[in-house]
Amino acid sequence: MNVAVVGVSGYTGLELVKILLRHPKFKLETITNQKGGIDISQLHPSLLGVLRKEVKKTNVNEIAKTCELVFLALPHKQSMPLAKQFLQKGLKVVDLSADYRLELETYEKYYCPHLDKQNLKQAVYGLPEFYEDEIKKAKLVANPGCYPSASLLGILPFVPFLDENMPIFIDAKSGLSGAGKSLSENGHFVNINENSFAYNPLSHRHMPEIREKIKNLSKKSFEINFVPHLLPLTRGMLVSIYGILKDEFQNLDTNKVLKEAYKNKKFIRLRENPVDIKSTSGTNFCDIYAKSNKKAIFINTSIDNLLRGASAQAVLNANLMCGFEQNFGLEGLAYVP
Amino acid sequence: MNVAVVGVSGYTGLELVKILLRHPKFKLETITNQKGGIDISQLHPSLLGVLRKEVKKTNVNEIAKTCELVFLALPHKQSMPLAKQFLQKGLKVVDLSADYRLELETYEKYYCPHLDKQNLKQAVYGLPEFYEDEIKKAKLVANPGCYPSASLLGILPFVPFLDENMPIFIDAKSGLSGAGKSLSENGHFVNINENSFAYNPLSHRHMPEIREKIKNLSKKSFEINFVPHLLPLTRGMLVSIYGILKDEFQNLDTNKVLKEAYKNKKFIRLRENPVDIKSTSGTNFCDIYAKSNKKAIFINTSIDNLLRGASAQAVLNANLMCGFEQNFGLEGLAYVP
Amino acid sequence: MNVAVVGVSGYTGLELVKILLRHPKFKLETITNQKGGIDISQLHPSLLGVLRKEVKKTNVNEIAKTCELVFLALPHKQSMPLAKQFLQKGLKVVDLSADYRLELETYEKYYCPHLDKQNLKQAVYGLPEFYEDEIKKAKLVANPGCYPSASLLGILPFVPFLDENMPIFIDAKSGLSGAGKSLSENGHFVNINENSFAYNPLSHRHMPEIREKIKNLSKKSFEINFVPHLLPLTRGMLVSIYGILKDEFQNLDTNKVLKEAYKNKKFIRLRENPVDIKSTSGTNFCDIYAKSNKKAIFINTSIDNLLRGASAQAVLNANLMCGFEQNFGLEGLAYVP
Amino acid sequence: MNVAVVGVSGYTGLELVKILLRHPKFKLETITNQKGGIDISQLHPSLLGVLRKEVKKTNVNEIAKTCELVFLALPHKQSMPLAKQFLQKGLKVVDLSADYRLELETYEKYYCPHLDKQNLKQAVYGLPEFYEDEIKKAKLVANPGCYPSASLLGILPFVPFLDENMPIFIDAKSGLSGAGKSLSENGHFVNINENSFAYNPLSHRHMPEIREKIKNLSKKSFEINFVPHLLPLTRGMLVSIYGILKDEFQNLDTNKVLKEAYKNKKFIRLRENPVDIKSTSGTNFCDIYAKSNKKAIFINTSIDNLLRGASAQAVLNANLMCGFEQNFGLEGLAYVP
Repeated sequence: MNVAVVGVSGYTGLELVKILLRHPKFKLETITNQKGGIDISQLHPSLLGVLRKEVKKTNVNEIAKTCELVFLALPHKQSMPLAKQFLQKGLKVVDLSADYRLELETYEKYYCPHLDKQNLKQAVYGLPEFYEDEIKKAKLVANPGCYPSASLLGILPFVPFLDENMPIFIDAKSGLSGAGKSLSENGHFVNINENSFAYNPLSHRHMPEIREKIKNLSKKSFEINFVPHLLPLTRGMLVSIYGILKDEFQNLDTNKVLKEAYKNKKFIRLRENPVDIKSTSGTNFCDIYAKSNKKAIFINTSIDNLLRGASAQAVLNANLMCGFEQNFGLEGLAYVP
Repeated sequence: MNVAVVGVSGYTGLELVKILLRHPKFKLETITNQKGGIDISQLHPSLLGVLRKEVKKTNVNEIAKTCELVFLALPHKQSMPLAKQFLQKGLKVVDLSADYRLELETYEKYYCPHLDKQNLKQAVYGLPEFYEDEIKKAKLVANPGCYPSASLLGILPFVPFLDENMPIFIDAKSGLSGAGKSLSENGHFVNINENSFAYNPLSHRHMPEIREKIKNLSKKSFEINFVPHLLPLTRGMLVSIYGILKDEFQNLDTNKVLKEAYKNKKFIRLRENPVDIKSTSGTNFCDIYAKSNKKAIFINTSIDNLLRGASAQAVLNANLMCGFEQNFGLEGLAYVP
Repeated sequence: MNVAVVGVSGYTGLELVKILLRHPKFKLETITNQKGGIDISQLHPSLLGVLRKEVKKTNVNEIAKTCELVFLALPHKQSMPLAKQFLQKGLKVVDLSADYRLELETYEKYYCPHLDKQNLKQAVYGLPEFYEDEIKKAKLVANPGCYPSASLLGILPFVPFLDENMPIFIDAKSGLSGAGKSLSENGHFVNINENSFAYNPLSHRHMPEIREKIKNLSKKSFEINFVPHLLPLTRGMLVSIYGILKDEFQNLDTNKVLKEAYKNKKFIRLRENPVDIKSTSGTNFCDIYAKSNKKAIFINTSIDNLLRGASAQAVLNANLMCGFEQNFGLEGLAYVP
Repeated sequence: MNVAVVGVSGYTGLELVKILLRHPKFKLETITNQKGGIDISQLHPSLLGVLRKEVKKTNVNEIAKTCELVFLALPHKQSMPLAKQFLQKGLKVVDLSADYRLELETYEKYYCPHLDKQNLKQAVYGLPEFYEDEIKKAKLVANPGCYPSASLLGILPFVPFLDENMPIFIDAKSGLSGAGKSLSENGHFVNINENSFAYNPLSHRHMPEIREKIKNLSKKSFEINFVPHLLPLTRGMLVSIYGILKDEFQNLDTNKVLKEAYKNKKFIRLRENPVDIKSTSGTNFCDIYAKSNKKAIFINTSIDNLLRGASAQAVLNANLMCGFEQNFGLEGLAYVP
């Protein structure tokens, strides 16, 4: 099945290309960016000797002629108009931006006016462990970002046991690739090497996303307090979640809860010790560990921010949308040592 | 005034030497370790060309003849017998181990039987912002470790506003120098580079220390949930604390609280943005930032784990014990860029 | 074709397992280490959820019953007795240790007495670009180490142009995974982070290996001055080679030389700018760049020390020995970003 | 004695401020940058709580009224017009740019037309170990850059023994702070972390500077082949120099040469093993090690690129120009661990 990647210049675009090169069913027919007219190995020199393929300027009609599914690896706001056209032409769309992740009201409050309200209603949130059936039937999947993926996979199994009147705290730690390719003060090696710091505490745009999905799945409203931190490393994400258990669930058996929640979920690994970043880097796995202490609970997850937090999860969603085995193309082995 | 450093082989011993070399009042008379018979510049090659001085084998009588104050930079359990003797001989003691930090019962529960119960009763906890008057009169100061220092300086100003029935969560992140010089799996470059992970979650020995000091100062009992993490960097510590405010203190004005608590405290810096590790590395400063969100509060501190978390705070305590200006020897400038 | 990996505990053992899992022809039948009795995912937790397979205690007879080829990922000196037995039983052997890399006299001078002189004579040096025909016919291939691989691939094309009376200088820079899994002072994070240094300058054991192979291929004797350095990174190797051109080859057209030397060599990439480590990390590529300046020449190569410098090159050699396409199992994509 | 720092926004400006704060004789009277109107602790937040002082817009007349010496921490080309004016008004000038480092012809070939040819003739090259007498009498000192400092201190003692007909190779490795504060592709954390590469090989602008100074001091002409590399660390520089000894000096006793060359030089440390970066970071030391092997010689130096490679050496030069002890303000202790 022919597919296209729109937006191959960034890190998630590159990761999509790398996964699709090894995919047994999807054929990477077209790759595009805003300008076109360059070979992919010039944009991403690590592909030299591996793939020579022209990056074209994005053209919906051309892509629609040859492809059945398109991945949109674009910044927020740029996805909407394109997704709308691709859907109109009958293609399946996996959108890696935030444009279809939120309900209308939430989106417009935190981002901008929405340009494709019609499709927004049909969009399915692409967290496969919790929306698998919907994804299988979807035409448009909104791929969750790295922070909500790692947070929700940790929180959701414990929602029934958490005190709804109490806030949940998410202390999230991300490597620098999460901030993308463009130059910034935070990304200057001298500023982040031998350093670490929080940014946008309690006000990050992923807070409403996490809150909304919990409510959507459980009908419960939690105050989410999200504090992202930068770590001096390239790839990976570690999330430490702190919550308050209901009195009747003090000293909860966290292992039992996790085992039941993730029975037969092949991309979730339950660990007996706190998780680490390197064991998931290079893979689509989400590693999870949890421990309770009276009323307190600590939930600990790790993902590769560019794979489970973006491109690999996108391919997983595409696999489900197309009726393929969910692990096609995703046998990535961790980048250890 | 002549002083001795007992235990110069480790990182905190080295930092004590470096500070005392620049101190206007203390003269570094004697330096010792377990074996002696080596020059300090052989133990710490970075001191070559800076300091030639014999490291002697620890001998209480010899030290007592020439010194008035001694810094004990020893592992837990090795300090007690020595401190006892030095005190008997009339020396002032700043102990950097855990041996005099806790009340007897707590100590024996988490460490081992105590060998110097008499002096334990008189020991003063060396957190200068909260025990200054006691330190000034003390013969024996128990220097707090890096984790409790960074945690307590963040929590203590907010104790009156926190809901005593709710746990406090401390997500602490430390560089590798905190684990000391000895070889370990966690300290192998390949294992921690491009990696990060929690260890001993909710069961670390610093939990009872933090809990006890809060109770000691405020008469309030909090459940402390402490989760230390390792970061792939050498020096520094970042602590993110999460707590639940009492209903009547929702959306607390955190700046006001901090300004009042730390008026005229010259080694506390209140920041308007989340703190970072590099701004305090190389100094005795503790940087603090806090923010509330309805019932939730986020408190954020940064220290140099070897300086404010050990050796510089020890010298500060010694300054106070000897009637000197508290900043003598501590004008360290941050290691930036 | 069934194969075995003897010595799966270390980094090169792990990389062999990872490559063989994706290999279209080799079946990873047996994996062993000194003790056995453990699952591979306990030795290498990153394999959890990917591979469950018992690590057995090494037993030549058992392996010989089911396997046709064996990879020996063992320390120097431990390989010889095992290789001898496997060869006796008719298996093909790829040895990743130094035991069969050198001529007898050189080996015994720099290592220890040789225990398998008979097979040493038949062993082929596994640098595929220069020994392809011999490897195809070999029963025993001595896989070159990372330093000689990266150095020889840079030097060999230029041997005819270099002044034989002048030394060649090799400034080699390696990440920490090259030093293996065992704990060491150099490998302590605090000692190598934010640091770099040379070790064993002009006396490293790879000097005679490089010298011998140049002589073997070109009949020319060069003084090799090899200075290895450690870099604060996990994976990868960068080699900067400096040599003196014969007078008649001043300002040599280095690109032309490289293009001719490596025509149709699919795992060599000629670069137009100095090479970098990340573009080869995760792959079997050797990237090369060179530039001349009058009599001086600068040759610059980069490889993944664990792949092209060990396990991937070993599989390439095995492919050649078995008549397979040389790139089977080696389509690894670089670990970028 | 009142001094000014012109150009405090960059890393070398910050380091000058930090050194001058502790200097026993120089008083940091005025600090300026292009715009002015900001406090130094806003430009460099690590100075918060340490120094509050207005950064003014550079004004020659104002500075000349109160200061006797000025440090120019400016980019190349911006220094010339200012130095000229300060000298005219009778101030002593230490210029950290390249503007007065080279002879006229060399400067104009590699940089741009020179605007202050008159003073260029009087400028003294500020490498104290080799130009001490001239510096003491100088009005204008051109402070060498980090690469030439570390290279020349290694090469100069060996010039009499090196074969003048053979090139010298300098493999220099620098941390990222050497590239300054401005954003760049090479400085993006993701691009240089876990990476290393050469840049501008055999064509860097420091080549003619090194060549010229060797010639100036020894009357000998060497071909200098300079290859700078970036290392994934913030601070420090490691230089590995490779040269060819004259036949009569094969297997030269390098220690003897170094001991004689640097007798009584307090900022040179001769090491018995290869040098490392961390032992000099934070100091004005240049560590040196050398070893010969027949005709080949390996010389190995390490400096802090911002201190001995810029700001500390500048203060050393100012000390000499003003008749002070050369180590005033420079008792910096290495940033270890």
